[in-house]
Amino acid sequence: MAKINSNFKKVSQSYFFLEMAKRVKPFKDAHPEVKLLKLGIGNTTEPIVPTVIKGLRMGVEKLSKQETYTGYGDEQGDTRLRKAIAEWYGNRNVSVDPSEVFVSDGAKADCANILSIFSDGSVVAVGDPVYPVYLDSGTISGKRVVYMPALEKDGFIPELPREKVDLIFLCSPNNPTGSVMTKGQLGEFVDYARKNKSIIIFDAAYSEYISDTNLPKSIYEIDGSKSCAIEIQSFSKSAGFTGIRLGWTIVPKELVTEDGDIGTLNQCWNRRQTTMFNGASNIAQEGGLAVLSPEGQKETHEQVNYYMGNARIIREGLADSEFKVFGGENAPYIWLKCPKGVSSWEFFDELVTKAHVITTPGCGFGENGEGYMRVSAFGHRADIEMAVQSVKENLHPKH
Amino acid sequence: MAKINSNFKKVSQSYFFLEMAKRVKPFKDAHPEVKLLKLGIGNTTEPIVPTVIKGLRMGVEKLSKQETYTGYGDEQGDTRLRKAIAEWYGNRNVSVDPSEVFVSDGAKADCANILSIFSDGSVVAVGDPVYPVYLDSGTISGKRVVYMPALEKDGFIPELPREKVDLIFLCSPNNPTGSVMTKGQLGEFVDYARKNKSIIIFDAAYSEYISDTNLPKSIYEIDGSKSCAIEIQSFSKSAGFTGIRLGWTIVPKELVTEDGDIGTLNQCWNRRQTTMFNGASNIAQEGGLAVLSPEGQKETHEQVNYYMGNARIIREGLADSEFKVFGGENAPYIWLKCPKGVSSWEFFDELVTKAHVITTPGCGFGENGEGYMRVSAFGHRADIEMAVQSVKENLHPKH
Repeated sequence: MAKINSNFKKVSQSYFFLEMAKRVKPFKDAHPEVKLLKLGIGNTTEPIVPTVIKGLRMGVEKLSKQETYTGYGDEQGDTRLRKAIAEWYGNRNVSVDPSEVFVSDGAKADCANILSIFSDGSVVAVGDPVYPVYLDSGTISGKRVVYMPALEKDGFIPELPREKVDLIFLCSPNNPTGSVMTKGQLGEFVDYARKNKSIIIFDAAYSEYISDTNLPKSIYEIDGSKSCAIEIQSFSKSAGFTGIRLGWTIVPKELVTEDGDIGTLNQCWNRRQTTMFNGASNIAQEGGLAVLSPEGQKETHEQVNYYMGNARIIREGLADSEFKVFGGENAPYIWLKCPKGVSSWEFFDELVTKAHVITTPGCGFGENGEGYMRVSAFGHRADIEMAVQSVKENLHPKH
Repeated sequence: MAKINSNFKKVSQSYFFLEMAKRVKPFKDAHPEVKLLKLGIGNTTEPIVPTVIKGLRMGVEKLSKQETYTGYGDEQGDTRLRKAIAEWYGNRNVSVDPSEVFVSDGAKADCANILSIFSDGSVVAVGDPVYPVYLDSGTISGKRVVYMPALEKDGFIPELPREKVDLIFLCSPNNPTGSVMTKGQLGEFVDYARKNKSIIIFDAAYSEYISDTNLPKSIYEIDGSKSCAIEIQSFSKSAGFTGIRLGWTIVPKELVTEDGDIGTLNQCWNRRQTTMFNGASNIAQEGGLAVLSPEGQKETHEQVNYYMGNARIIREGLADSEFKVFGGENAPYIWLKCPKGVSSWEFFDELVTKAHVITTPGCGFGENGEGYMRVSAFGHRADIEMAVQSVKENLHPKH
């Protein structure tokens, strides 16, 4: 008799972001005339930049002619793209070999699937609060998950694991708090991992939002990290590829565990991907190549700056209104403290009903997110301005 | 200390198709002037049809303008595409609700990932010979895999499982043998599954190659199958999307296991996909919609006919030359019997060195594939003709 993976019992019935949509529905149905301003899900809103559109068009045109048509590509990604990604790191003084680059259809799938190459008995440390995919996929895959509190008093930087763990998820710039780890803070985790033979899975999906040149954009800027860290990256937030689906994962060749007779982690991930994945879309990969071209980098950086302009408007607007805000300086997320004694869901409802603004309840990212809201800077400028104005006029933290 | 998933020890070090490429390399290096004719990997070679190119172009253009740009879509797929897929089934008198359709980035990933919603203790039955992804992903996910021999004497239709199993992978039209299960044969598996409360995972990736109207293209043509079967489909072979990446999986709502307190399989797969997947590329999905349009169906069916023309040339050419051949009538694969006493790898080498033709050794699909070769009908007509001619001239089964 077929049985369900019982770990599904341990996760909430629906993915958190879907839960939010359900919660908003009654208000929407009752007030169809109200335009809700969405500062909730971190979804990009601005069109793909011209150089990248050209790349995507070329991807399609190639498929229309026999001479340029391609079917299956390498599961690990187009050789040109793997090389371009390695060069992109090289330009930042980080040394990555193309054979360490695995092109993916986005960071979310890789964050979840990477767990499959590790023993089920692994203990996985995740921040609290943090992007819920690490916890949910860790739980579904049968691993024990422990938390690293990331508290206001520590600038929302996670504590080192309190017990010995095998795998550590780090997300910097952080989703949801917008905090960014310094080289020193990241170095402490690298030291911990080397000492305890743990593997860090570093989610750098928001690295392009870092403008402070002292802050690390890649974990490989930290000495010794290539022997203890996997890095996961994405074109989603840096180039608006949330719908196009493209990312990559770096699995350094020197990364081995003590049961290395099975192979290096690079070999295992290669085996996993060639068996269970068939490569990212060739059209998306042509787009990715265009993103990494000099023009593509220039245009996409301008788009990132646009979103960061939104972040400044939100941060300053809410602070003006005497809200306590964090993040939003090197990340597209502002972490808003709820008024005293008000829970995340209560404040969510208040923001929806009074200001017609959708934000994300911090409690969805872990227990320590309770009492906070994630405000996303992804949106059209006019909507962002309207939302901030509406919060200012209709809500006051002291109320 | 991080440890590797020890199941990786139980699978061969590299994915079978990569192994073939390695084996050919020495000959290629020694004879750079020889053009090898590839009838190996089942990779599409003909350009995307005009109507679908239009759809893909529209997908790109939409992303270039603010009014039509879209970021994250539903993880389950674009509502329009889910509806179009349900209608496509409806046109074949199979009733599928859009909420049962999960759009994917291709059948390979879903065939592997679907295992994650089932208990690790599950026993999985796979054909022998069959597409190696079922065995490899079953093994990597820690499940016990048993075989259902598919022998020449039975027309390469798999036997029913010899012991009680929880999950059954069926692939019809079959990769690699090109055999297609009749309604009666499929009905026996449905009866078995209902009796034993097993779940059938039906891989229908090659259904569009069936021209015999008596043969079932979907398992849901069999009465009672919606309470025991998941169906996995793909745009890869029917529309040349091997590189674009698009497919779907049907998880009927009535599909429950006895530990149904965790939820229906539809709910579990929904939870898995929303947590660990971020949807197929929106450009690919626009292309998929175009495939399912009346024009798209007409043009892609013509392309399928072109490949089936190749299949006929291979089948008849090899039979003329007194080889024993199977399949290739309702499937793009011809299953060629090696000359007596010659192993698959030996014959592979012979075909490469004497006829300069790459085929796939049957042993890569399971023990019972030993002594056979899979010959793929995907290729340009001129290459197929040249390959068949070359085999005829340079090899004889009696030699």
